[in-house]
Amino acid sequence: MTTNEKIAALRQEMREAGLVAYVVPGNDPHASEYMASHWCEMQWLSGFSGESGTMVVTMDKALLWTDSRYYLQAGIELKESEVELMRESDVDCPSIVEWLAAPTKAPMEGRRFIGLNPEMWSVDQFSAISHQLSEAGIGVKSIDLIKPIWTEGRPAIPTDKLYPYSADFAGETVESKLARMREKLAAMHGDSLIISALDEIAWLLNIRGNDVEYNPVVISYVVLEADKCSLFVNPDKIDSAAQNYLDFNNIDVQPYEAIFGYIAGLKGTICYDGAKVNEALYEAIQQSAIAKNIQSPILIDKAQKNAVELEGERIAMRQDAAALTRFFKWLEEEAFKKSTDRFTDRTQTASLTEWDLMEKLHEFRAMGENFIEESFGTIAGYQGNGAIVHYAATKENCAEVKPEGMLLLDSGGQYLDGTTDITRTVWLGGRIPQQAKLDYTYVLKGHIALQRARFPRGTRGNQLDALAKQYMWEAGITFGHGTGHGVGHFLGCHEGPQNVRTDNNPTPLAVGHIISDEPGIYRTGKWGIRTENLITVIPAKQTKATTTEDEWLQFETLTLCFYDTNLIEMSLMTEDEIDWLNAYHVRVYKETAPLLNADEAEYLARKCAAIEI
Amino acid sequence: MTTNEKIAALRQEMREAGLVAYVVPGNDPHASEYMASHWCEMQWLSGFSGESGTMVVTMDKALLWTDSRYYLQAGIELKESEVELMRESDVDCPSIVEWLAAPTKAPMEGRRFIGLNPEMWSVDQFSAISHQLSEAGIGVKSIDLIKPIWTEGRPAIPTDKLYPYSADFAGETVESKLARMREKLAAMHGDSLIISALDEIAWLLNIRGNDVEYNPVVISYVVLEADKCSLFVNPDKIDSAAQNYLDFNNIDVQPYEAIFGYIAGLKGTICYDGAKVNEALYEAIQQSAIAKNIQSPILIDKAQKNAVELEGERIAMRQDAAALTRFFKWLEEEAFKKSTDRFTDRTQTASLTEWDLMEKLHEFRAMGENFIEESFGTIAGYQGNGAIVHYAATKENCAEVKPEGMLLLDSGGQYLDGTTDITRTVWLGGRIPQQAKLDYTYVLKGHIALQRARFPRGTRGNQLDALAKQYMWEAGITFGHGTGHGVGHFLGCHEGPQNVRTDNNPTPLAVGHIISDEPGIYRTGKWGIRTENLITVIPAKQTKATTTEDEWLQFETLTLCFYDTNLIEMSLMTEDEIDWLNAYHVRVYKETAPLLNADEAEYLARKCAAIEI
Repeated sequence: MTTNEKIAALRQEMREAGLVAYVVPGNDPHASEYMASHWCEMQWLSGFSGESGTMVVTMDKALLWTDSRYYLQAGIELKESEVELMRESDVDCPSIVEWLAAPTKAPMEGRRFIGLNPEMWSVDQFSAISHQLSEAGIGVKSIDLIKPIWTEGRPAIPTDKLYPYSADFAGETVESKLARMREKLAAMHGDSLIISALDEIAWLLNIRGNDVEYNPVVISYVVLEADKCSLFVNPDKIDSAAQNYLDFNNIDVQPYEAIFGYIAGLKGTICYDGAKVNEALYEAIQQSAIAKNIQSPILIDKAQKNAVELEGERIAMRQDAAALTRFFKWLEEEAFKKSTDRFTDRTQTASLTEWDLMEKLHEFRAMGENFIEESFGTIAGYQGNGAIVHYAATKENCAEVKPEGMLLLDSGGQYLDGTTDITRTVWLGGRIPQQAKLDYTYVLKGHIALQRARFPRGTRGNQLDALAKQYMWEAGITFGHGTGHGVGHFLGCHEGPQNVRTDNNPTPLAVGHIISDEPGIYRTGKWGIRTENLITVIPAKQTKATTTEDEWLQFETLTLCFYDTNLIEMSLMTEDEIDWLNAYHVRVYKETAPLLNADEAEYLARKCAAIEI
Repeated sequence: MTTNEKIAALRQEMREAGLVAYVVPGNDPHASEYMASHWCEMQWLSGFSGESGTMVVTMDKALLWTDSRYYLQAGIELKESEVELMRESDVDCPSIVEWLAAPTKAPMEGRRFIGLNPEMWSVDQFSAISHQLSEAGIGVKSIDLIKPIWTEGRPAIPTDKLYPYSADFAGETVESKLARMREKLAAMHGDSLIISALDEIAWLLNIRGNDVEYNPVVISYVVLEADKCSLFVNPDKIDSAAQNYLDFNNIDVQPYEAIFGYIAGLKGTICYDGAKVNEALYEAIQQSAIAKNIQSPILIDKAQKNAVELEGERIAMRQDAAALTRFFKWLEEEAFKKSTDRFTDRTQTASLTEWDLMEKLHEFRAMGENFIEESFGTIAGYQGNGAIVHYAATKENCAEVKPEGMLLLDSGGQYLDGTTDITRTVWLGGRIPQQAKLDYTYVLKGHIALQRARFPRGTRGNQLDALAKQYMWEAGITFGHGTGHGVGHFLGCHEGPQNVRTDNNPTPLAVGHIISDEPGIYRTGKWGIRTENLITVIPAKQTKATTTEDEWLQFETLTLCFYDTNLIEMSLMTEDEIDWLNAYHVRVYKETAPLLNADEAEYLARKCAAIEI
């Protein structure tokens, strides 16, 4: 089927259902960041292959909203179909609701209804768009119109095996986690808790899987009750070892689709996190039951890593450090090795692309013990490409890298021990422009300031954001992305509720939270500089100077990798910052060298040499 | 009448009205920080003279909620009556609603009603407490039960004259302000705007008065309509000059109490700021009209001072600087001058109290051109008294000051030109403890960091809060009050919506906002250190380094007064900070010296001498 044929088929379904429009978001039923291809309805219908977008189809229009990262790609991919691109990053671009509500643009008469697949919207999203549409006099119908038309070639929901994740890694037994969550459920006067976020299920039941790229999760639902824990999952995913594990932990297994019927049978107070649980599950709740929208207690607990999880993170960080050391050594000493053409006697530099770097880095990481996969798609941004914040090179479409200029490298791994995410920016050769040194140093100073921060318990991430920005702000420079996102433990590389951003987030930083610390400066067409470590919140000692009874917190840096000291403008650095950096480099060497051979260790020692004013 | 007699009379009224409890808050009908004594119902009824508290009377209990600042005072003042003290700063103290809702503590049968005087609660407060009480099954009746019993000795509402405030000071004519507010009213589809905040009325109509201590405002209401502006004010307050002024500006004058009838006659959409407008005004709105709760457009505009207002502030600051210079010179050179007892031949130090300092400072300030009054009660906290954040010495109850140790001095003036608020902490003599120098320097570094900050437009005050705290945080020290409050122009020393605090405030800092910058460190029983300047937001130049299209903002320091450089621990200061301080001292001298005599100027020059590492 061509895109236009799919849209025509959808319109036929819309006509039969009495709908004037149908909206297809880029979501899955589990509010996942990375989705199984089975749920890529927006991509299938529109022909646009980017990760983020929303499709709207009316009887005479088919439109795709996406942001500026995807304008170019969407422009190319939509060319052959009737789908029009709505540039949602542009200030004059109407929102979907505005567009639907404007009678001149979507002329619809009488009582108008719009269709939404309730599985693809969280309860909160569904309720927000329904409310906005109802204010414009438009009704909403919960209906899946893609299922009847996407009959051929639809990828199945992945059937990879789930596997138990040992408490030796998780640091807490399932029994203990279930008991704690049941206490919390009782405290909120709930009789049952619906859990649909895949990382929450993986954490709660100490299970992992391979269903989603970059995230070792298992596609499933859970309903937790006082005396029962039901896992809704495709039975093909469970081998006998897994079955034994689930039986041992009194986890009742039911087919994935059985969740709807099961919820329909629940009585009393049913708790669900409306930000995560999809509308279809909510609609399955009986009228006689009480539905209670809460913040998931699993989200809160999962974010605060226990001692075993943190120790695992430290182990994973050493593996990552060895891989990065080998990579940078290769990049410096091997990648551009000149060969001499024996006919012309002219030296030639080996040709290298961003894609080659991504593959080579994967190779080194894959050597690491307990390495499973990348935790996200590596960003290797050479020169101007580094300034494109969500840059993703492909084999076909990537820049050649030369032994000169700036390289931004943002990558991470999923290890059985934990999840890593690190960015380093390095200078590959040639004269360093003074602005590049200034930019690198503003970023580094902010990056260090956040890691060095002490703060009273109760402090929110957004209160610390300016610490990472103050030096670049002084120079009139800022950046648009968050300064830090939460990170899971052998789970999502992005997790909530903790973060460090400009916008207000009511969550205070708490002991065991892991966040990234990644300020950046981006010069369009020239370079991008970002420096990122993962850090975790730890208690700080009361000092003698303390005037209040506040408990004090600080950060422990988890990530282990040297900075490119050639890029530092030393005149901007304070003594405290230099001391911090030198002590960090001593630690990087000490913790990484045991994993390296003599050559590699010697290389790392040079990279970690102390700097002085 | 004794307090118990007043309570008995109130209970009689409660019985007749069918109420089980009556709540008397420490508010006035205009949501004022400083109140005319006519409205001090809580103080009159309870016998407690502090500024902050709420009284609850049931048939068998009379209770006063107040915070820890007032425990001592309330304990003494309530001793002779049946009123019990509820220590609301204590963690186990129930809130008023919790206490009223607890059936064991306030046993009340059947349908229970509680009385509130709707004039004394803002619409938002009234709606919040009504909602909470209704969840506990308690109803609310709008009724004033103090009026019938407070018949003798009740102070009248002040009848001081109102006076026009020249546009030469205000920087904008009434005509222009009214036109702008009418545009804003139309933009929010409003037909009328009720204004009850006294500083908003004073700003809008360019009038001032003497009705409230520390705030040059006129007790009145305003209703603004497209073709009419009505001022509700006691006619005795208007002399012929004022009448001419109001006539000239087409402001219709009506009696103060006529506001209720006037509102009852309003049709269409009536806008009001529920955070400021009292419930009684709201209840006067007819059912057929539409009441629309909005943020006052006057609040927003008033906060962004125009060029004339800012120039006035700079003039007022120079007056303040001269007064403080004279005060500190007197304190250093005269106050403790030793006299020799001619009989014993022993030298004697003159005796001096905190109250003496307050009076002397007033004397110097009163010499200033266009000085009207203090902008708040001066805080002179000697040694341990400086650690009591809201310390208020009285003539009868204050400490003796000796030429040794620490003095915190927080004061401000109302000048026709503008409002000032400044804190300096100085060392009066003796050996300086090292911890005192460290504390002073942490505070100073934070105070300077906020003044030096540059930030992109859209930044909120709470994003900058950590800049002022980062150095003391590093030492494990923090403080509980806000870092900065908004300041009015010849109006309230505290105004919204701008501030710098830990809690989230959605208001971005905007050009023309004035805020204080006043970090502090408080050591119980030892000393309090606070350093405060007023600063205003100004546009910052784009630098060549700028990477984005953000507009940049920074602060201009308005306050002019030297710091006590003896208290600075120089080893903690960076070169940038020392440069900033030296440049500031050069400016202080340059702008203040022309107002001083030769001796004073010489003294100031010594105080402003450059410091070096």
